[in-house]
Amino acid sequence: MSPGTVFGVGVGPGDPELVTLKAANVLGRARVVAYFSKRGKVGNAFAAAERYLNPEAERLQLIYPYTVELSSSDPRYVAALRGFYADSAALIVERLAQGSDVAVLCEGDPLFYGSYLHLHLRLSLEHRCVVIPGITSFAGCAARAGLPLVSTDRVFSIIPGTLPDEELEARLRTGDPAAIIKLGRNFGKVQRVLQRLGRASRATYVERGTTASERIVPLLSQAEDSSVYFSLILVPAVEVGAARLPDHEH
Amino acid sequence: MSPGTVFGVGVGPGDPELVTLKAANVLGRARVVAYFSKRGKVGNAFAAAERYLNPEAERLQLIYPYTVELSSSDPRYVAALRGFYADSAALIVERLAQGSDVAVLCEGDPLFYGSYLHLHLRLSLEHRCVVIPGITSFAGCAARAGLPLVSTDRVFSIIPGTLPDEELEARLRTGDPAAIIKLGRNFGKVQRVLQRLGRASRATYVERGTTASERIVPLLSQAEDSSVYFSLILVPAVEVGAARLPDHEH
Repeated sequence: MSPGTVFGVGVGPGDPELVTLKAANVLGRARVVAYFSKRGKVGNAFAAAERYLNPEAERLQLIYPYTVELSSSDPRYVAALRGFYADSAALIVERLAQGSDVAVLCEGDPLFYGSYLHLHLRLSLEHRCVVIPGITSFAGCAARAGLPLVSTDRVFSIIPGTLPDEELEARLRTGDPAAIIKLGRNFGKVQRVLQRLGRASRATYVERGTTASERIVPLLSQAEDSSVYFSLILVPAVEVGAARLPDHEH
Repeated sequence: MSPGTVFGVGVGPGDPELVTLKAANVLGRARVVAYFSKRGKVGNAFAAAERYLNPEAERLQLIYPYTVELSSSDPRYVAALRGFYADSAALIVERLAQGSDVAVLCEGDPLFYGSYLHLHLRLSLEHRCVVIPGITSFAGCAARAGLPLVSTDRVFSIIPGTLPDEELEARLRTGDPAAIIKLGRNFGKVQRVLQRLGRASRATYVERGTTASERIVPLLSQAEDSSVYFSLILVPAVEVGAARLPDHEH
């Protein structure tokens, strides 16, 4: 019996129709489907993928350690998370050894800020790992808002709101377009930095983009203390000089 | 008769299986399919989308002005391109007025460095435009290479190789991970900047990622004068201090 394959499957930003045909095919065949979630929830990736899953598949829920009392820099939290990823990898390895393919569900793209990265680093040296890319949240949100992301020779950056004020400010001072992710309790800080730079009034806040509970509003109409984690801010470019036409893409 | 809708349809990085179910559904219904290409070619987007098209659909090929003799900053080139986008928009408006939906094929994601942006800006004020996001080339290429893009609180940037040396160097000096696009004749310059910064030896060159003619090689094994436009460089993060565990995504 040959060992199974790990599939890191990007399921996109939330809307089940934004799953690719390749991902749907893999999900329809895999004998095990693994997914990260908080206790008592199934998680966003599962909701986007559910309709495509092999109905006979084992569902292997990987529940994050409960960490409400610990800050994410606390060494006990770091140790708990490290143990959690090691245990999760071991559960997957058991299934691979039985010859089963394991599909790991990933919000957005598997290699772009996701928990799957931890499994990939642990598993890919000794096991066959195939990554199916997914639509990133910033692309999904921009599409729903109908807002250009970037063109011509501008740089586009994805910036975590977890960075300190001064780093955020340095990154946003270039005037290039950006998406700011990982908001939640960082939302107020990010909003203030954008206001200091004069970039808040043209920015757009998108919450749960592409899902049924999506909200799209001007950044400044969003109250400071009311952001959820599953949200982002789209910051358009500051235009420099005359409008430029891009190279055409070919 | 109600006017038609414009669909900007992201078809992903090349592999037809990386088209989303939403995109495939739209392509199967639209009465007109428009696509940008060079004269004598059908283009990468068409190749990725062809199997999903409504077989009865009118095929509206939008052929870029022939510009071999003119540099992209030449005012005659800029004028030709501006006229081309205005004419393309007019051709689409004719179809909309006849009540037909028009699907515009876009490599990667429609709002991310693509020609569709020019149509969107011209059409979206007076016509209904719906954007279907697509898998970006950097995500498709990283998946095929099995390389992490970004994690934790690092910034990820997409950097056009068209930028001058000193701007490229400033962007890459931060040590954050990046994808460098628009290579072609800029390849040698980009490779030299990465070498000066000590970041070339860990970088990966991906040509026509996710297609049948894909090539994935270490950057330094790629000869300086042999890059194609449809390629990119993945530059991993410079690790700072001890490895950090990311926040889990929820």
